[in-house]
Amino acid sequence: MTFEKEIKITEVALRDGSHAVSHQYTVEQVTTIAKALNEARIPYIEVTHGDGLGGSSLQYGLSKTDEMKLIEAAVAVSDFSKIAVLLLPGIGTIEDLKQAAKIGAKMARIATHVTEADIAKQHIETAKDLGMETVGFLMMSHMAPVEKIVEQAKLMESYGADTVYIVDSAGALLPDQVRARIKAIRQAISINVGFHAHNNLSLAMGNTLAAIEEGATRIDGSIRCLGAGAGNTQTEVLVAVLDRMGIQTGIDLYKLMDVSEDVVSQILQKPQIINRDSLTLGYAGVYSSFLLHAKRAAEKFSVDSRDILIELGKRKIVGGQEDMIVDVAAELSKKKSGSACPSTYTT
Amino acid sequence: MTFEKEIKITEVALRDGSHAVSHQYTVEQVTTIAKALNEARIPYIEVTHGDGLGGSSLQYGLSKTDEMKLIEAAVAVSDFSKIAVLLLPGIGTIEDLKQAAKIGAKMARIATHVTEADIAKQHIETAKDLGMETVGFLMMSHMAPVEKIVEQAKLMESYGADTVYIVDSAGALLPDQVRARIKAIRQAISINVGFHAHNNLSLAMGNTLAAIEEGATRIDGSIRCLGAGAGNTQTEVLVAVLDRMGIQTGIDLYKLMDVSEDVVSQILQKPQIINRDSLTLGYAGVYSSFLLHAKRAAEKFSVDSRDILIELGKRKIVGGQEDMIVDVAAELSKKKSGSACPSTYTT
Repeated sequence: MTFEKEIKITEVALRDGSHAVSHQYTVEQVTTIAKALNEARIPYIEVTHGDGLGGSSLQYGLSKTDEMKLIEAAVAVSDFSKIAVLLLPGIGTIEDLKQAAKIGAKMARIATHVTEADIAKQHIETAKDLGMETVGFLMMSHMAPVEKIVEQAKLMESYGADTVYIVDSAGALLPDQVRARIKAIRQAISINVGFHAHNNLSLAMGNTLAAIEEGATRIDGSIRCLGAGAGNTQTEVLVAVLDRMGIQTGIDLYKLMDVSEDVVSQILQKPQIINRDSLTLGYAGVYSSFLLHAKRAAEKFSVDSRDILIELGKRKIVGGQEDMIVDVAAELSKKKSGSACPSTYTT
Repeated sequence: MTFEKEIKITEVALRDGSHAVSHQYTVEQVTTIAKALNEARIPYIEVTHGDGLGGSSLQYGLSKTDEMKLIEAAVAVSDFSKIAVLLLPGIGTIEDLKQAAKIGAKMARIATHVTEADIAKQHIETAKDLGMETVGFLMMSHMAPVEKIVEQAKLMESYGADTVYIVDSAGALLPDQVRARIKAIRQAISINVGFHAHNNLSLAMGNTLAAIEEGATRIDGSIRCLGAGAGNTQTEVLVAVLDRMGIQTGIDLYKLMDVSEDVVSQILQKPQIINRDSLTLGYAGVYSSFLLHAKRAAEKFSVDSRDILIELGKRKIVGGQEDMIVDVAAELSKKKSGSACPSTYTT
């Protein structure tokens, strides 16, 4: 294997990890963690609500602390690391982005569903105008075929993005699928290619190495696996693995191990393991937000919530189509018993 | 990718996982877990002390329950699954093996350091004479070059083993190293090839898929990651991944997920995560038993225990050479300060 460039890591524990702490980060926690990450020489630290700028809401979970205060806190202690923000058009606004840039965020990551890059145009252009390094973030990348992803990556490049990421939001991709996706967009675009993994199928690290082998040079990690679902590629482990492979990251491994053990592990609400729920989400390839809906529907119709989630995955149901969950539960119940009545009616 | 055969999984939570519960398994726990694994149609269930037959000792940790009672309990509830036992010549004896066979164990896995297959001859031959399916288990396989491993695998085949395993005891191998090892022994021997991973570098699943890609057909997994260090390839996740790849295992995924969530998670003393210690062991590529020694020596000589472990890995120190740990600590201290005095003398 040969590697063209240094790998640049973005630490997402203060953004994707926000899900793992129910968006309860405090200024003090963010200050402590960002300071340690800066000392370990992490290139980029992402700080926002788990669902990006403006994510704090009843729908996505209310943040304990205004994310702008958290961004300011991270900026204040980072003289090496650049602070990144995530923005999902439709959740965050151009105004949020401008405010983040004003208080010192240097990188904007504009995230859309893998087939909807076109809604990122204005945001990517604004981020570039604001002088930010800009990333196009193609979420749920397991849901589209390679050709579609290539088309969407080209769109993001055309809007001015400096990097395009393949994002395995559900932790559903297998190594060969990662290879095919990274290889194809590497051939189609001339900007940086990145990869963001989730560990629901225990493949975050394996998939990350497959992505690097195919030429991805921007990689997301979360210290102590602090991310949604089963967490992301564990940053301190990734740095150790890359070191063993002779790939330089410029990051201080011991400092990173120490902040994981001595700081981050203390604020975790529960360990980041692969349990029945996270495995089911990765296996089915669906949004984690479907889980609770599926469990409720499963109870109502006396079916297994896993069967519902797997069926939703097969039908490629996306966010906004939650109504389908009850329909699928009813169908499964009918198939099972010959009637589609909620269980409360049949007992 | 094409796959020649069905993958046969050996569940090691009741053996390797014995480390994770400090060898405190009870007859009731083993009965409950083995019964559920049998119902899920796991082909092989390994049951012994974490260090194999006869492992219960002050040196390796005393078992709460006589392992023969645990084997009997597992045999009693398994009409589908075959019960396997691990034996390390020097720890377990031929008599232990005969007793295990007498009470119903159907598979013997004879484990040696990767360069010491010759000490397994008598045990493999005896196991075959007892009518057991027999596996040669090459431990710490990251410590020997490919040619050496091929030579050792051939020895085990010549003694009559039905299968030879590449065992990544320290969780130190990278996917390309796994591929090279499996490929080479597949070409050199005509019996089954197996792979046993540890997750210290978050690569248990990635390495397992690499092994399968190169033709390994026998794979070890531990439910809920219940194994030494950071645990093994998580069985229920492996079954889900193989299913997604179209590889049949004959195992009931939902039943396996349920026993993981409802039974095994309850008896775990701590979650199986990758922490500073397990990461260091995988990065250094050393025995987990070195950890405590290294920490003591580090304190005495005021050096970082990680530096000691990494140096031990570089020198390929193996079990039985624990004296070297203090020597290495003294050398590192000398290099650091110009003197090799224990810190208690220099303060």
